[in-house]
Amino acid sequence: MAHFDLPLDQLRSYRPDVAEPDDFDDFWGGTLEESRSLASPPVLARVDTKLRTVEAYDMTFSGFGGEPVKAWLLLPAGTSGPLPAIVEYNGYGGGRGLPHERLTWASCGYAHLFMDTRGQGSAGSAGGATADPHGSGPSVPGSMTKGILDPHDYYYRRVFTDAVLAIDAIKALDRVDPARVTVTGGSQGGGIALAAAGLVPDLVGAMPDVPFLAHFQRAVAMTDADPYNEVARYLAVHRGDDAAVFTTLSYFDVVNFSKRATAPALFSVGLMDIICPPSTVFAAANHHAVGAEVVEYAFNGHEGGQGVHWLRQSAWLADRIG
Amino acid sequence: MAHFDLPLDQLRSYRPDVAEPDDFDDFWGGTLEESRSLASPPVLARVDTKLRTVEAYDMTFSGFGGEPVKAWLLLPAGTSGPLPAIVEYNGYGGGRGLPHERLTWASCGYAHLFMDTRGQGSAGSAGGATADPHGSGPSVPGSMTKGILDPHDYYYRRVFTDAVLAIDAIKALDRVDPARVTVTGGSQGGGIALAAAGLVPDLVGAMPDVPFLAHFQRAVAMTDADPYNEVARYLAVHRGDDAAVFTTLSYFDVVNFSKRATAPALFSVGLMDIICPPSTVFAAANHHAVGAEVVEYAFNGHEGGQGVHWLRQSAWLADRIG
Amino acid sequence: MAHFDLPLDQLRSYRPDVAEPDDFDDFWGGTLEESRSLASPPVLARVDTKLRTVEAYDMTFSGFGGEPVKAWLLLPAGTSGPLPAIVEYNGYGGGRGLPHERLTWASCGYAHLFMDTRGQGSAGSAGGATADPHGSGPSVPGSMTKGILDPHDYYYRRVFTDAVLAIDAIKALDRVDPARVTVTGGSQGGGIALAAAGLVPDLVGAMPDVPFLAHFQRAVAMTDADPYNEVARYLAVHRGDDAAVFTTLSYFDVVNFSKRATAPALFSVGLMDIICPPSTVFAAANHHAVGAEVVEYAFNGHEGGQGVHWLRQSAWLADRIG
Amino acid sequence: MAHFDLPLDQLRSYRPDVAEPDDFDDFWGGTLEESRSLASPPVLARVDTKLRTVEAYDMTFSGFGGEPVKAWLLLPAGTSGPLPAIVEYNGYGGGRGLPHERLTWASCGYAHLFMDTRGQGSAGSAGGATADPHGSGPSVPGSMTKGILDPHDYYYRRVFTDAVLAIDAIKALDRVDPARVTVTGGSQGGGIALAAAGLVPDLVGAMPDVPFLAHFQRAVAMTDADPYNEVARYLAVHRGDDAAVFTTLSYFDVVNFSKRATAPALFSVGLMDIICPPSTVFAAANHHAVGAEVVEYAFNGHEGGQGVHWLRQSAWLADRIG
Amino acid sequence: MAHFDLPLDQLRSYRPDVAEPDDFDDFWGGTLEESRSLASPPVLARVDTKLRTVEAYDMTFSGFGGEPVKAWLLLPAGTSGPLPAIVEYNGYGGGRGLPHERLTWASCGYAHLFMDTRGQGSAGSAGGATADPHGSGPSVPGSMTKGILDPHDYYYRRVFTDAVLAIDAIKALDRVDPARVTVTGGSQGGGIALAAAGLVPDLVGAMPDVPFLAHFQRAVAMTDADPYNEVARYLAVHRGDDAAVFTTLSYFDVVNFSKRATAPALFSVGLMDIICPPSTVFAAANHHAVGAEVVEYAFNGHEGGQGVHWLRQSAWLADRIG
Amino acid sequence: MAHFDLPLDQLRSYRPDVAEPDDFDDFWGGTLEESRSLASPPVLARVDTKLRTVEAYDMTFSGFGGEPVKAWLLLPAGTSGPLPAIVEYNGYGGGRGLPHERLTWASCGYAHLFMDTRGQGSAGSAGGATADPHGSGPSVPGSMTKGILDPHDYYYRRVFTDAVLAIDAIKALDRVDPARVTVTGGSQGGGIALAAAGLVPDLVGAMPDVPFLAHFQRAVAMTDADPYNEVARYLAVHRGDDAAVFTTLSYFDVVNFSKRATAPALFSVGLMDIICPPSTVFAAANHHAVGAEVVEYAFNGHEGGQGVHWLRQSAWLADRIG
Repeated sequence: MAHFDLPLDQLRSYRPDVAEPDDFDDFWGGTLEESRSLASPPVLARVDTKLRTVEAYDMTFSGFGGEPVKAWLLLPAGTSGPLPAIVEYNGYGGGRGLPHERLTWASCGYAHLFMDTRGQGSAGSAGGATADPHGSGPSVPGSMTKGILDPHDYYYRRVFTDAVLAIDAIKALDRVDPARVTVTGGSQGGGIALAAAGLVPDLVGAMPDVPFLAHFQRAVAMTDADPYNEVARYLAVHRGDDAAVFTTLSYFDVVNFSKRATAPALFSVGLMDIICPPSTVFAAANHHAVGAEVVEYAFNGHEGGQGVHWLRQSAWLADRIG
Repeated sequence: MAHFDLPLDQLRSYRPDVAEPDDFDDFWGGTLEESRSLASPPVLARVDTKLRTVEAYDMTFSGFGGEPVKAWLLLPAGTSGPLPAIVEYNGYGGGRGLPHERLTWASCGYAHLFMDTRGQGSAGSAGGATADPHGSGPSVPGSMTKGILDPHDYYYRRVFTDAVLAIDAIKALDRVDPARVTVTGGSQGGGIALAAAGLVPDLVGAMPDVPFLAHFQRAVAMTDADPYNEVARYLAVHRGDDAAVFTTLSYFDVVNFSKRATAPALFSVGLMDIICPPSTVFAAANHHAVGAEVVEYAFNGHEGGQGVHWLRQSAWLADRIG
Repeated sequence: MAHFDLPLDQLRSYRPDVAEPDDFDDFWGGTLEESRSLASPPVLARVDTKLRTVEAYDMTFSGFGGEPVKAWLLLPAGTSGPLPAIVEYNGYGGGRGLPHERLTWASCGYAHLFMDTRGQGSAGSAGGATADPHGSGPSVPGSMTKGILDPHDYYYRRVFTDAVLAIDAIKALDRVDPARVTVTGGSQGGGIALAAAGLVPDLVGAMPDVPFLAHFQRAVAMTDADPYNEVARYLAVHRGDDAAVFTTLSYFDVVNFSKRATAPALFSVGLMDIICPPSTVFAAANHHAVGAEVVEYAFNGHEGGQGVHWLRQSAWLADRIG
Repeated sequence: MAHFDLPLDQLRSYRPDVAEPDDFDDFWGGTLEESRSLASPPVLARVDTKLRTVEAYDMTFSGFGGEPVKAWLLLPAGTSGPLPAIVEYNGYGGGRGLPHERLTWASCGYAHLFMDTRGQGSAGSAGGATADPHGSGPSVPGSMTKGILDPHDYYYRRVFTDAVLAIDAIKALDRVDPARVTVTGGSQGGGIALAAAGLVPDLVGAMPDVPFLAHFQRAVAMTDADPYNEVARYLAVHRGDDAAVFTTLSYFDVVNFSKRATAPALFSVGLMDIICPPSTVFAAANHHAVGAEVVEYAFNGHEGGQGVHWLRQSAWLADRIG
Repeated sequence: MAHFDLPLDQLRSYRPDVAEPDDFDDFWGGTLEESRSLASPPVLARVDTKLRTVEAYDMTFSGFGGEPVKAWLLLPAGTSGPLPAIVEYNGYGGGRGLPHERLTWASCGYAHLFMDTRGQGSAGSAGGATADPHGSGPSVPGSMTKGILDPHDYYYRRVFTDAVLAIDAIKALDRVDPARVTVTGGSQGGGIALAAAGLVPDLVGAMPDVPFLAHFQRAVAMTDADPYNEVARYLAVHRGDDAAVFTTLSYFDVVNFSKRATAPALFSVGLMDIICPPSTVFAAANHHAVGAEVVEYAFNGHEGGQGVHWLRQSAWLADRIG
Repeated sequence: MAHFDLPLDQLRSYRPDVAEPDDFDDFWGGTLEESRSLASPPVLARVDTKLRTVEAYDMTFSGFGGEPVKAWLLLPAGTSGPLPAIVEYNGYGGGRGLPHERLTWASCGYAHLFMDTRGQGSAGSAGGATADPHGSGPSVPGSMTKGILDPHDYYYRRVFTDAVLAIDAIKALDRVDPARVTVTGGSQGGGIALAAAGLVPDLVGAMPDVPFLAHFQRAVAMTDADPYNEVARYLAVHRGDDAAVFTTLSYFDVVNFSKRATAPALFSVGLMDIICPPSTVFAAANHHAVGAEVVEYAFNGHEGGQGVHWLRQSAWLADRIG
């Protein structure tokens, strides 16, 4: 997509005003409190795989409203003491797939939790296993406009709550050191990681990769690519709902979570990324409360840094965790 | 799409075996009984429009599980006695839109009910207003794979039930003659009409236009076009679920409803229709229990006969209703 | 297409210089005079439809050069006195279709004339019935470049003249009140409506919807979409004809007709409309001689406001006509 | 497009029944007679080019109805005696362009006439210069459906007549040997060449390259590609005009001209040609009255043999003319 | 792509005649002998990664003509005795990427060698590092037609030789058990694995996943998708080279290697795979000399079984190796 | 592509800083010296064609490293004395094709040499015949990234050297006047012509048509179209190689050759050209050392002026050569 966004020097200092509702913190405080009150301890079932160096567990934990959410927990085999942990969230549409598909973090000695995204999980490799037991008013196919007329009904209220409770759940495990938890994810997973990092106070860091769900007002007007375009298509039909829609989205804009971060962050951005335009990523990074490092991939689109960026992430994390 | 399907002479006699579950009638009997037991009378609210020849009502009736479903009821202005009625269902993704958008049937002297399709209604003109308050396991964006692993959970169980209860609702109105009700619709709406006509015993006729939801096993393997392709994409991820998926779909295949029809039908088919391939339409028509007339549009795709076909429908109906 | 044009605040005040030939008024005065001198009274034939609330007439009137042009005239059934009238022009490529396809205006109590566009009429539903008995020099497929080297030969000279004579014709009908005529149309139809409103002095109003044929010089350089792109493709082959082509087009640029309007106008614009870019629509609206209201559809493309906009139009018109 | 048509062995013997009207010969006899009666001698104007080996003339001759048609006449410079001649027709949409663009035949010692196609000529390099001063009823953009409801009005009646009168014109020139005239062309030009060769009795040969306008009934149903698809789009709107349209086309199907050929032919065919499917080309070749050689290009689409095929043509022609 | 190929029952028994040159074995015997005579022992360099459960080595071994080829060798950390080994080849265009990107086999206790494909390696994640120091005559961009006029010059002669010498190299390592080596790969990698398995006599098994390079004569005529289409594009330009090209390809058709297999094979096939059509995959499997199991993925394209298929592979392999 | 680049008035004065390596002249001086030292005299073989006005020769001359390069030499038949000469280079991917395909220059009295581009020649008509006997490290399919990490290995080092030695070769011919040589070509051929004109001191002129290979740093960031995009795709995989890649390209940027021109130039540019964006063309023209005339084609893309521009070229050249 060539370099379609602002010039690089402007991107690096791009720090736009992004709408933030007055009751943002109350909204999220109440949401988490309610779901935590409904939570029961996570259940782990050892999975029989051919893997010898990694132990895999099918974990079920209580997400939004006490509803069951699936995840894979991978642990380096033969370890016993409390491990540093990484909680990873998924890109749009995908499911947790199969335990052998993401071995890197556990192979580095981390407890690695990969969370299913409720109701998605029918794209990519082997899909997911977590239902979203909530219906919706008329919506565009996909997740972006489910319940979009009210922040309480919005799909990502449930997902972000799941994300926080996944951290709660992993901290409760004997083999995990609750003081050394990091969140990460790519695209939608990066957005969720930023949200979780704005809501959970004692993380070691956040590593959002080409994050989605940032600066909706600009993104929806700027790109024709899904998933942001789902919102535009909704507004093309539900003419006049603009104000309600963007008010709802302001509760979920990760720029607002980035302002509340308490741990450092390592971002990545693809300067040719038309799915998550670079200015929206820089908007979140430049509003970061603690300080965000942004790794730029100048000739990449939404694929960003891929395996090369993992080298950056694993080194950045090792510096913080040892 | 040129003429990609069987030669026309084979299409005209194409009458494939289509799987039918043993408990098909029990399934639907129980489903309707349960929802009917939860129904309350329809509520009508006169809508203030600029229209002078047609009265418009915002009707809310009890659909599946007693849940509210929206429809527009249009009546020719200034009439009093019981009118023949037409219940129309919508194409995929669309909503009921606005009352002035479909004036033809009421302008011909019919009571015309246009039913919203729950949870859809964010495509086309002005959208819909009916929620589908049921979540789903992991599904492909769109309606086709919501709850697809169990016929009780499948999205179209709710929609077909709504469709039948819409007929119940219109029959209960003073200004409608319950003995002269016809169902119609295009594409998804045509499939729903066929389903309703297989479940409701005393209709005057059914007029499915380029109907969808017919002969799934062939359609899913034959076309890359949505919405059938949503099922193929689901199966591409959820490998091994083929048997469960096609078992579920056999409860909703309109070929099986066509076999149970008690009123004559007027079909249309586009011989270049890659969305609802002609062989799947003929499969439903050729299995029709009473007898189906099929109007062929030789050089049309999924748009079929459009306004020209309405001339056929209005004449066909006038012959039956007067 | 996202928001690709000027920022909204600039659009709202965009009022560019648009070339206008010195003999613009003479050209059109002479053109109309000549064709009016060749006109004979309109011929109406009642059409047998199933419609009960609306009477339909196949009207043939004298257009450019006295040539026959087809239209549908719809009247609310059972009325007698002179009715307010709406003359509607069609979008690019379409034909008048069938009488039952556009019932809204007649159902509101207006006499409604829907004019065929000569030579087009082979796209959309059921096509048109009006020939354009004039050949052309080498042209790009489509109507945009027929006769484009000379304003006297240009296709839209004939169409705009037809449009004016359609108003003449409807005013001559007993059941129409010649003092209460409004013009409307979408896309090409909006452009034709603006042209007619610049040439006919005593209209009640004009309601151009996402109008085409505005600010050619900008439009042809700005969009790759047809129909504007037909002109670019012509110039890509006939290199060096730029001056002649844009001189011809200046006689047909609806910005120049908007400057001559004598009745108020209600415009619509899609801010994501790549077919008729918003700046070209605002160019016409902001040059309007009487005053134009512009309804903006922020997340719509060329479909604009659809049925929602009709609510605006019918209310706007009711305010003026009662 | 891979090998989408019949297997090669079936293609080579494919000789389908193609509808032929009873008055085919009368229709064409009358048409030619009338236009010939209106013809005046061709006018040649020497063109000032930088070319030294070839003389170029802007030729205007009388075509259908005595209307002027443009062509380039190229002669090898410095020759005097009567030359063998090649009349070439153009592909769809193109114009005669510029004299220096096709030098091969004149460089081989032939008089070369390249005829403009009336009304087309706004695609390709530098366009054309011949008007088609005949309007049309509603038609699809392009030439294929202009006047398609009556063979007397059909666009190609005028073009085929032009093609025959071009041969008349060149034979009348002093520097041309009227006993040694050959026709050729690619795609539409190939179809026109076949038509001319069916109407002109004393040609040396015809060299149609991937000819168009053959076996319409099959072609229109088989390919989605333009220009054949223009007919399908027309029929998609003008439902019910199939019989009239295919009756008209039967007067112009080059299969019927091939049956009337009096000189041998050299065809080419691209076995992956989706624009002019190979079976339609073989249909014309296998019905050839005198005998047609078909050069197959197995991995080519509509581009066929290009410069390689010219080697075949020039050798084939040299064998016949010397 | 729907189910575009033969019906499934025909696919399962599809065993076409595929051309095989008389000197096939001599050609390959000589090729391998020459390159083996130029080989020097592999060089391993430990790579510093963050991985704790897996040791990574940058391996350079002698490929075709003694030229250096890169690979990643991964070993489960902390093991000492001879390990069973898996040699994996890459899909078209990709490079070996980074060592942490493919951890599954080493995590199961295998020595895992992932070979770079010479000259490719500029697609996908992080690219490759192996040059192909051989030029070519005129070729289509990509690898498929480099040197295609002579089997000695053809690109895949070098690649298949590299593949065999990679097996030689890994067998020579102390930590590898040379009696327990398996080959695998997806798409191009599957084709290379089949070739290697036809040339190396003492493998445990081969696991080609949606293999490419099979039954060229059918594949090139059947699909428009790259990379097979590179050959069609070459032949579209180099008309007349068909015989030479297909003769060259017969030395590299993996059907001919499959006939020579000495170890069992586990194939996968996507029944909607337009890149490597299912009939070409079955052609190779059904000609397998020892016996091939084919896992069918009914609703998948070229992605085939992905992580789900790895479950099949790892189980199949464990049954053979323990 | 509409007018996507800078406004025309800015284009006309666009003269950006373009990186130039310090040893640019040494690099090229050494390169040419070495290859010239390996050169042997050109070999000409008369080709038997049907052409009478033009003599065709298959010429083989020594290019880079003394390697054989093919060209067609066309001479006006029957001439004897030294002729002015035109050396033409080809567009990307094409081959020299066949001698009869480009007759214009020879028909005007010039000796015309059309050079094959090594290793390309499998697109367009009949392909090429010149090998590039040099391999490459991992590269993107196509020529743009072969050897791109080092200017000595870069593909265009060989091509530009071939281009210069083609001029050497033609000057050595008896029938050519070495003082009247001009270079030309379109797209890649225009870039090569500019390079040659910067390296050969005594040309009459250069006529680059929509030249490629100009201002890489801007072009690669600005367009998604190939061939420039090959570089972007390379950098998307080989992250971090930006500096090395653009350093290599600075030795081949035709802006730097334009600065060294010693003869006047006639450029063309398409203002809608997304393949070779107009700003990159003006960058080269506005840096021209002697003075460049730029013919603008306002509504053309990469096809530029086609035959119309040849009229400009032949006139411009006639003014200089007579």
